[in-house]
Amino acid sequence: MDTTLRDGSQGVNVSFSLKDKLKVAQLLDQLGVDYIEGGWPASNPKDFEFFKEVKGLGLSSKVAAFGSTRRKGVKPSADQSLNGILDADTEVGVIFGKSWRLHVREVLNVTDQENLEMIYDSVRYLKDHGLEVIFDAEHFYQGYLDDPSYAIAVLNTAREAGADTLVLADTNGGTPPHVIFKVTTEVREKVEGELGTHMHNDAGCAVANTLLGVAAGARHVQGTINGIGERTGNADLVQVIPTLALKMGFKVLKDGSLPKLREVSAELYDILGQQPNPFQPYVGDNAFSHKAGVHADAVMKNPKAYEHVDPSLVGNSRKVVISELSGSSNLLAYADALGLTKNKKDERLRAALERVKSMEKEGYSFDQAAASAILIMMREFGTYVPSFEVDYWKVMSDGVLSLAVVKVNGKPAVAEGNGPVNAVDKALREALRDAGLSVEDVKLVDYKVHLPGRARNTESVVRVVAQFTDGIRVWGTTGVSTNVVEASVRALIDGFDYYLQMERRKR
Amino acid sequence: MDTTLRDGSQGVNVSFSLKDKLKVAQLLDQLGVDYIEGGWPASNPKDFEFFKEVKGLGLSSKVAAFGSTRRKGVKPSADQSLNGILDADTEVGVIFGKSWRLHVREVLNVTDQENLEMIYDSVRYLKDHGLEVIFDAEHFYQGYLDDPSYAIAVLNTAREAGADTLVLADTNGGTPPHVIFKVTTEVREKVEGELGTHMHNDAGCAVANTLLGVAAGARHVQGTINGIGERTGNADLVQVIPTLALKMGFKVLKDGSLPKLREVSAELYDILGQQPNPFQPYVGDNAFSHKAGVHADAVMKNPKAYEHVDPSLVGNSRKVVISELSGSSNLLAYADALGLTKNKKDERLRAALERVKSMEKEGYSFDQAAASAILIMMREFGTYVPSFEVDYWKVMSDGVLSLAVVKVNGKPAVAEGNGPVNAVDKALREALRDAGLSVEDVKLVDYKVHLPGRARNTESVVRVVAQFTDGIRVWGTTGVSTNVVEASVRALIDGFDYYLQMERRKR
Repeated sequence: MDTTLRDGSQGVNVSFSLKDKLKVAQLLDQLGVDYIEGGWPASNPKDFEFFKEVKGLGLSSKVAAFGSTRRKGVKPSADQSLNGILDADTEVGVIFGKSWRLHVREVLNVTDQENLEMIYDSVRYLKDHGLEVIFDAEHFYQGYLDDPSYAIAVLNTAREAGADTLVLADTNGGTPPHVIFKVTTEVREKVEGELGTHMHNDAGCAVANTLLGVAAGARHVQGTINGIGERTGNADLVQVIPTLALKMGFKVLKDGSLPKLREVSAELYDILGQQPNPFQPYVGDNAFSHKAGVHADAVMKNPKAYEHVDPSLVGNSRKVVISELSGSSNLLAYADALGLTKNKKDERLRAALERVKSMEKEGYSFDQAAASAILIMMREFGTYVPSFEVDYWKVMSDGVLSLAVVKVNGKPAVAEGNGPVNAVDKALREALRDAGLSVEDVKLVDYKVHLPGRARNTESVVRVVAQFTDGIRVWGTTGVSTNVVEASVRALIDGFDYYLQMERRKR
Repeated sequence: MDTTLRDGSQGVNVSFSLKDKLKVAQLLDQLGVDYIEGGWPASNPKDFEFFKEVKGLGLSSKVAAFGSTRRKGVKPSADQSLNGILDADTEVGVIFGKSWRLHVREVLNVTDQENLEMIYDSVRYLKDHGLEVIFDAEHFYQGYLDDPSYAIAVLNTAREAGADTLVLADTNGGTPPHVIFKVTTEVREKVEGELGTHMHNDAGCAVANTLLGVAAGARHVQGTINGIGERTGNADLVQVIPTLALKMGFKVLKDGSLPKLREVSAELYDILGQQPNPFQPYVGDNAFSHKAGVHADAVMKNPKAYEHVDPSLVGNSRKVVISELSGSSNLLAYADALGLTKNKKDERLRAALERVKSMEKEGYSFDQAAASAILIMMREFGTYVPSFEVDYWKVMSDGVLSLAVVKVNGKPAVAEGNGPVNAVDKALREALRDAGLSVEDVKLVDYKVHLPGRARNTESVVRVVAQFTDGIRVWGTTGVSTNVVEASVRALIDGFDYYLQMERRKR
């Protein structure tokens, strides 16, 4: 069960519009997750709209609505949260209840027995209305460590009331993995019915704790795409699913969905307006990168010796990183692909590596900007043919208007933009057009601004990383300067230049 | 044993200068880690300098040098890697050797027996020279699953040669947690001597796998600060240590060091020129944040009910996040601190929240910019007294010169800068000075540029987040625009304005 749209939405910086929620539901359906927890209708009235609209999408995944057990002293039929679930008109209801006596006493302010009655009545009410019921036992592990027999009584009460799945939640995310494994194993022995896991990442163990829950017998797993969620997040399904599927022998998604994981992960970052995490296991840009010379060398001989899974199984690919520690093996891979040399000890290759190293000291990083490094290498190999010369650029900007002039091959061109960087981008394209160079097909698809230095203020060095496509290839470039416009101009120039160099090679 | 300076240095975007390495060693020594793995002398000649210089620092931590077992057909005394360790002149040597027969055959190209001899000779050589020896069994878990008796023979060979610690490494980082626990438990039963763990994060389980190794009997732990390392990184000691110390009863660091973890983590990000990860367990900005209204409310009543540890134990603090999902509880905490209201249902508070929500739709985020949100709130409560008026700003920039004019309270001021944003920053300060407003004490300590939208190109909306200090307080502000200069001006104006408002309240 994916809970990106419910528990995930409580993450810092997470804010879904209705349209976003419907888009996420479609992505999850394409993956083939069994359940999509869509929201908490009683807590967030906006979620009603979601449950109404999602019906029109004809999803195969079951959609679930979330709510708490009934309030104390209130009949289920008069309870807003429970009726919120019914009004959402879904097949599945998820109810969370208390299993830690500290919460029963101090948060709910009821007796142990009253809490059990609240759980029983709430589950029964939804079952009587024909719903499949998933019961989330909040703070279960702490509750069990505090008073195992009460925590077990909570689960049995929910099961006796008809709950279809009993979920053990590590709500504050702090339970160590060996405790998760031990407690889940004990619960599996003591309680009948399907068990589930719901883990948070406060001790950095959410993914592993989820896998340990399954190893101990749970067969229902809750988590979110990219691990979004309150505080340090929920279990990241993007990391959990491949291990379950590729290493633990479970069929988790529908056939053929696993290679979509990287794309779905990227789409969610995009919806949130965030950059993908390059270090994310399985799907991150660096997950199958090879930087150390010795590894990069060996991995080409036998990938199985150094890679835990084939990257293509999760939609990822192997990446050789250009960097100062990498030795010449990594640049060599690019030089070889361009037909420049196959010889690791080629003097021109060494010269290019020296140039890359000295630029890294100025704040450059070519990890996401191989095209800029390739242009350097082509110059060292003498295969670079200048395609244009930027004589100067100038911008003027205030809150109302941004204007740029860029002079290429002796001829100035002017453009207005919605900011100085946009103006200079447009003026550069205009100037290239005037110079008879065709870059119409080149689209800027990503543009990022980093401040790589230790001190970060308005005087700092800025690193711009840009990504381009012509509809067929994708390439990245970079520029560094204390002036954000200058850094952008450098990355843009490299972006167009790389395209023109590659077009020339075709002819 | 911290391996930030050795295995960590192979991470993408990681590049330590000699000065950086010495700084990191000092930070680790202040924490009181037992061992600092300083580098691989035979692979990186620069590391010799480190081992020479580090002696002058008088550290309490033991410093260890890393290297491989001797090459095939070479005597230890003629082996470059082993002599590299001796030349580093440390108390401790770390040797890695092969325990997976696939690597023995296909990477080393030796027989099973030759590999055992290489291990024996290498450990013995360092022991004969008086070193403490830590033996890292590379790819141990895969080796054990492939051929348990050979993997055990590798460990026993190292132990018989005198190795003080036998480290089980999950080198490709792909072993699931229940397998780590099971295999380590079996090894603990079969092999004598101290066991260690070395985990990588390729399946998102490095932290948990390390803890499981300890739960199964290992007493030596390897990892890096912030989990830096090749591909998706190594086990993050910043996450491992608090769980070992606070939840598993181990004394890991020297007394009083645990609260330094957040600072050490931040210092390492700073050395690498990276932004801290706000979602990092224990030490991240969001690790003890409370966004959901229900939680933010309850956590104030009883922190233990919702927080897995006291944030101050690891040098962190509780944070209430201002955001559209938060309800009015979070803004209320600020309003209360300013003496504006204690009433959650105050109409002016609701109006401020509405304004915050509508700005978030334009791309604003106040998570790191509470001062900008507080200025909005003060306006709604009528306690805001305008301190200055920016009439206009204008910048001109090219590759050579950036010039800005800012007009405040009717009087223009001009400044040159090393880029348009820096120029406008300096001109604004100049104009405030001309207007008789004292902001000399206000220092900009952080400045970031985000592109929050889904499409990111030179037309995109830019969000600037700035952090200021006057030596006593620290406050964050934000500005949003398609024009990076305009967004910066807005954040700078709020930064100075907040300071002046707070100074006025003092009087």
